[in-house]
Amino acid sequence: MKISELCQVSGVSVPSIKYYLREGLLPSGERTGTNQADYGQGHVERLRLIRALIDVGGLSLATAQRVIAAVDSTDLPLSYVFGVAQYAISDSSVFDEVEADSPGLERVDALIAERGWTVSDDNPGRQGVARVLDTMAGLGQGHIAQFLPQYADAAETIARADLASVGLSTDIADMAETVVVGTVLGDTLNASLRRMAQEHVSYQVYPAPRSNS
Amino acid sequence: MKISELCQVSGVSVPSIKYYLREGLLPSGERTGTNQADYGQGHVERLRLIRALIDVGGLSLATAQRVIAAVDSTDLPLSYVFGVAQYAISDSSVFDEVEADSPGLERVDALIAERGWTVSDDNPGRQGVARVLDTMAGLGQGHIAQFLPQYADAAETIARADLASVGLSTDIADMAETVVVGTVLGDTLNASLRRMAQEHVSYQVYPAPRSNS
Repeated sequence: MKISELCQVSGVSVPSIKYYLREGLLPSGERTGTNQADYGQGHVERLRLIRALIDVGGLSLATAQRVIAAVDSTDLPLSYVFGVAQYAISDSSVFDEVEADSPGLERVDALIAERGWTVSDDNPGRQGVARVLDTMAGLGQGHIAQFLPQYADAAETIARADLASVGLSTDIADMAETVVVGTVLGDTLNASLRRMAQEHVSYQVYPAPRSNS
Repeated sequence: MKISELCQVSGVSVPSIKYYLREGLLPSGERTGTNQADYGQGHVERLRLIRALIDVGGLSLATAQRVIAAVDSTDLPLSYVFGVAQYAISDSSVFDEVEADSPGLERVDALIAERGWTVSDDNPGRQGVARVLDTMAGLGQGHIAQFLPQYADAAETIARADLASVGLSTDIADMAETVVVGTVLGDTLNASLRRMAQEHVSYQVYPAPRSNS
């Protein structure tokens, strides 16, 4: 199809398509003339991925570019693609390095040891957990740390489902796409399910107004 | 203590403290003279809460204000405080209403029925789950829906830990603060733990580079 049809089918404007082509997020079409190229279903799908990462995942264009480059590098281990997707969606300051003597960092490393997890030192989650623990301790809410084993259980359940979902993909490119989409959109999915479960459990645990309890 | 000491102890600048006082986020000090007031430990703690919501939780000042008003309304049911905290941190467009005939919304309502969850129609999580499911289906990643029971299990584990943590608080004001801080910072905690668990599980499931598998 021509670029105008690609625009119609995908709902992405021609200037945006041209921009993605220039930036390498979208592979070139097959050249059919001096100023014409032919685009296929693969281009439609790639445009959907780009829009999902930016519109639903909230990634910047530069970050989406890094993530898509990882998807396209089919010779890289899947764990590397996970890593890139994780870093890409972890560029908030929450995941910046905490102080080396952070009590939260000590606690998260103890958790990793307790569970026998293999986690590299530069996994952004390590800094994220440490920062939350330090912040909550400063607010007199340090008791959250008592529940780390339960939160870690939930994280393992989620990660096993994430990986099982990746395993359903039939080819390597699709697998990499599942990793990226699942990592970016999965946080939103899990945060959303948590809100529903909180409402349900809070009715069970605190049925009466606070003033009567 | 005087406002200058409050600034030193809390690390929050005097203009910011005055701004929070004016906007009602921080209660007034005890008047000791025409232009002087006395501040106590409660003010130090409240300033920590404000900074945690804004700096780590990423809330806007207006949103932090709504959340703190809910904490201060001790006559409201705790489930209401949960609701306010949930809405406050769910003001991204991800939680906007999806189309009424969204297949994802049908699927999330089926999930609620399957699990016997009590969830109000306007829980923002309902829209969030529907949007993620619709987006993933559009990307050819609809198989994620098969794993909803596992993700819902994890969400229940997390919600039970959230509520148990609230139950450790000794007074009502502290309880409300746990709800708010836990809701806002808990998403970051869970997303961080997920990144670590993903790395661990991915080594187990895909130990070899993709090109050899």
